[in-house]
Amino acid sequence: MNLDAAKAALAHLELDDTPASVRAKSRDFFWYSPVLKARLDHVVADFVVSPRNEAEVIEVLRTCHAHDVPVTLRGAGTGNYGQAMPLAGGCVMHMKNMAGVREIHPGRVICEPGIVIRDLDAITRAQSGQELRMTPSTAATASIGGFVAGGSGGVGSVRWGALRDLGNLIRLRVVSMEAEPRIHDFTGEELHRVSHAYGTNGVITEIELPLAPAYDWISTFVAFPDFPTAAEFGARLADEDGILVKLITVCEAPTASRYFQRFRGHVGEGDHVVLVMVAPHAMPAFGTFLTRWPTGRMIYRSDAPDWPRDPGVAYEYGWNHTTLRAIKVDPAITYLQVRYHGPDFLSTIERIRALFGPELIQHLEAMRENGRTIYAGLTLVNFTTEERLDEIIRIHEDLGAMIFNPHRYTLEEGGRQSTDARQLAFKREADPKGLLNPGKMIAWDVPDWDYSTIYSYAGLRPAP
Amino acid sequence: MNLDAAKAALAHLELDDTPASVRAKSRDFFWYSPVLKARLDHVVADFVVSPRNEAEVIEVLRTCHAHDVPVTLRGAGTGNYGQAMPLAGGCVMHMKNMAGVREIHPGRVICEPGIVIRDLDAITRAQSGQELRMTPSTAATASIGGFVAGGSGGVGSVRWGALRDLGNLIRLRVVSMEAEPRIHDFTGEELHRVSHAYGTNGVITEIELPLAPAYDWISTFVAFPDFPTAAEFGARLADEDGILVKLITVCEAPTASRYFQRFRGHVGEGDHVVLVMVAPHAMPAFGTFLTRWPTGRMIYRSDAPDWPRDPGVAYEYGWNHTTLRAIKVDPAITYLQVRYHGPDFLSTIERIRALFGPELIQHLEAMRENGRTIYAGLTLVNFTTEERLDEIIRIHEDLGAMIFNPHRYTLEEGGRQSTDARQLAFKREADPKGLLNPGKMIAWDVPDWDYSTIYSYAGLRPAP
Ligand SMILES: Cc1cc2nc3c(=O)[nH]c(=O)nc-3n(C[C@H](O)[C@H](O)[C@H](O)COP(=O)(O)OP(=O)(O)OC[C@H]3O[C@@H](n4cnc5c(N)ncnc54)[C@H](O)[C@@H]3O)c2cc1C
Ligand SMILES: Cc1cc2nc3c(=O)[nH]c(=O)nc-3n(C[C@H](O)[C@H](O)[C@H](O)COP(=O)(O)OP(=O)(O)OC[C@H]3O[C@@H](n4cnc5c(N)ncnc54)[C@H](O)[C@@H]3O)c2cc1C
Repeated sequence: MNLDAAKAALAHLELDDTPASVRAKSRDFFWYSPVLKARLDHVVADFVVSPRNEAEVIEVLRTCHAHDVPVTLRGAGTGNYGQAMPLAGGCVMHMKNMAGVREIHPGRVICEPGIVIRDLDAITRAQSGQELRMTPSTAATASIGGFVAGGSGGVGSVRWGALRDLGNLIRLRVVSMEAEPRIHDFTGEELHRVSHAYGTNGVITEIELPLAPAYDWISTFVAFPDFPTAAEFGARLADEDGILVKLITVCEAPTASRYFQRFRGHVGEGDHVVLVMVAPHAMPAFGTFLTRWPTGRMIYRSDAPDWPRDPGVAYEYGWNHTTLRAIKVDPAITYLQVRYHGPDFLSTIERIRALFGPELIQHLEAMRENGRTIYAGLTLVNFTTEERLDEIIRIHEDLGAMIFNPHRYTLEEGGRQSTDARQLAFKREADPKGLLNPGKMIAWDVPDWDYSTIYSYAGLRPAP
Repeated sequence: MNLDAAKAALAHLELDDTPASVRAKSRDFFWYSPVLKARLDHVVADFVVSPRNEAEVIEVLRTCHAHDVPVTLRGAGTGNYGQAMPLAGGCVMHMKNMAGVREIHPGRVICEPGIVIRDLDAITRAQSGQELRMTPSTAATASIGGFVAGGSGGVGSVRWGALRDLGNLIRLRVVSMEAEPRIHDFTGEELHRVSHAYGTNGVITEIELPLAPAYDWISTFVAFPDFPTAAEFGARLADEDGILVKLITVCEAPTASRYFQRFRGHVGEGDHVVLVMVAPHAMPAFGTFLTRWPTGRMIYRSDAPDWPRDPGVAYEYGWNHTTLRAIKVDPAITYLQVRYHGPDFLSTIERIRALFGPELIQHLEAMRENGRTIYAGLTLVNFTTEERLDEIIRIHEDLGAMIFNPHRYTLEEGGRQSTDARQLAFKREADPKGLLNPGKMIAWDVPDWDYSTIYSYAGLRPAP
């Protein structure tokens, strides 16, 4: 890698090599995981470049390719698995300057990748009364490109399924890292080459996404004295196709009382809380549904607020914000990502609760999968050791719950522990030197990896 | 009943007693059923009154109550079970003059009952880019009040479920038939008192309904060489939460070749056809989905039409329009209304096909029920005798398919063969003399009816 030559060639762009800011832009929310924290805390790039347009993206890629400099993409660095961290150093390409909205049509938007999701929603809302179908709970800071390349779903998935489900992405424009970078426009099955590929095989420079109508979603919180009822309430509510909701989050006690500061005084230690975002015109039906659950108490609704301190929007208590709030209060907490599906998913959850007791605190997110309501679990874990964490994962799998391990920095280990042939094939074509976000795709480095232990990228630059 | 006194008192309203037009306005699409045709063909009211506003509705009800004149509501008379037919004669109250749209908001509309559904959709679309969540395939002629009082779902139910599911109706304003009629505003559980009650216990004078975004839906037709694949294609497509569709209709061969005139030359006798309405921004994903079904051929898409004669919108081949087109070609055909649900609903359909052969031609409509995709069947039946029809129904029930019998004119027999306690209780309150649409609610006439034979209303005015 010829760093100096690359930096010199790129000096006319927005380039930053101040150590403190390079270090800041080399990190994401990997520290959610004690496992990743122990391994990646020292990771740092050599410089950060922030292209203003696709031509500059191409220039960066061509130059870094010529000088064998690794390039790791960065949106806002809110990913949780070190996805955006430059394991082998080199260049971090920051997308913040590419934040334009190109076209808004009924049902879709075309934009650049670096725009902050909340800003994008504000623009489509103002100009067309529409918003994204789904956003991560980090919408206020995360970029849309980072969501497409590193996210999986979130607020809105209760209605629309996961981000990679057919129809939730329309088109991605991608630049390859070759001697002469090429531009691809991907639709259909080809979208899977680069969506959720952590930027390992191309740079997304334009995104076309479907839009849904924007409503003034109402945040409501419902407390239940027992957890199985709360979980059932959430699942049955998600099954009500006529009640338009955008979020159904179930937090086992004592999450709300202990970790949600603004909930203090409104919930007890024993309260299990369901957070729901409801369309205004669905509030009457939601109210009717609620009366069928005699033990459920609506403790807050943002359209008739009666808490002295505004708790803020519901979604910033959901998805990985639940974890964030818990870690802030108790740094010993970490989490797991679980999928409970199949005909008996509520019983699976109960069996797991019975087995673990307070070592785990359940946090469920209702979503759609193949036309069914399922729960994604972002279980809070009282962390002790890595060995115990692995054991907890094994027990979940034995009980029929699927785990997406958030304590791994590779695509495969965070996914289904198998090679995505489409991503790998496209990497061969689009990144022949293997310079894009190195160390994140095991299949590229070690094709016959057996997953029996945590993968450790050989090119990981050692701590100085 | 003192007809002359009632007519005299109402003479200053829009009142019609010309025999030909009274007879026309006393009939609906009951003739779809040979069973009802044999029983109701002679039914005729004494006069028709068309109130211009709620005050006139109240005046009609007060007057007819005073003179013991039955009142049967009429929207557009497109119902299929004689719902709008005045079995005991008397007054038909026609709602065509009450067709105003009162308010349009994000996600909802408030209107009068007499407006034609297509006109309502055109107004909400023009003013707000929104349309009704669901409409009957008769949207071009049917009234919204008739849909709420007599319909069950339709185009859009693949996404939103049935009309009576929570959230699909917001509010109904209802006038009772008492000495001094009262006005009720129903929301929540109370909606069930009057929705799908055939106007037997109140007159709906104002309706608040949810709206969804209006898109320029694309009509597509896909042909399959075998039926089970076509049925599976439709069900799996309905499970794709990210592919926004409004209609998925599966027509077994030879429906399309034999009964859909404009399809001639484009399909063969053996083609099973799936009709799909797709949002424009969902067309790429729909195309991707389709490529996963190698035996499916897209034979038409309205955004790139290549048929010499425009086949028109897909929904006018779906729901009960399929039946209409079949009857027009072959008057010996009638139909059944079936629900296929449960984990194995596709096999149930196959078992029924195997058993009946060409006596039945399958027609399936994908819809949501409790968060699941199911099929509503509007099976075409080669009619022979009433006894055989009853036997066909019994066999369906034995095989686990639920029947809503369209060859009956009462609420109970067309539904689950049991009293709706909420409707009955409200009728006691709102129509103490039993003058509203008499003969349609068995529970009112014969509380201990056992359903072993077809109900025959004792007050049915005999043929002259
Ligand atoms: C509190 C909290 C809550 C969260 N909630 C959710 C949630 O609800 N749902 C969810 O899916 N995730 C969630 N996340 C994870 C993360 O916030 C989201 O996925 C977010 O969308 C990432 O966006 P970003 O701009 O921060 O991406 P980054 O973290 O900067 O990048 C993510 C990945 O995308 C790559 N990348 C970025 N831009 C490009 C590009 N233009 N081309 C190619 N590759 C690119 C990066 O290299 C990296 O691998 C959460 C994280 C936190 C800390
Ligand atoms: C070809 C065809 C296709 C069809 N497709 C569908 C379909 O997809 N889905 C579906 O649900 N139905 C369908 N139907 C049935 C029917 O067309 C619809 O239910 C339609 O909405 C009825 O509206 P209408 O104005 O014609 O009602 P009408 O037939 O006039 O009345 C229906 C019932 O409502 C009562 N009523 C009318 N107005 C009021 C009021 N203001 N207050 C109280 N009661 C009132 C009447 O007394 C009657 O009992 C179809 C029928 C045909 C012939």
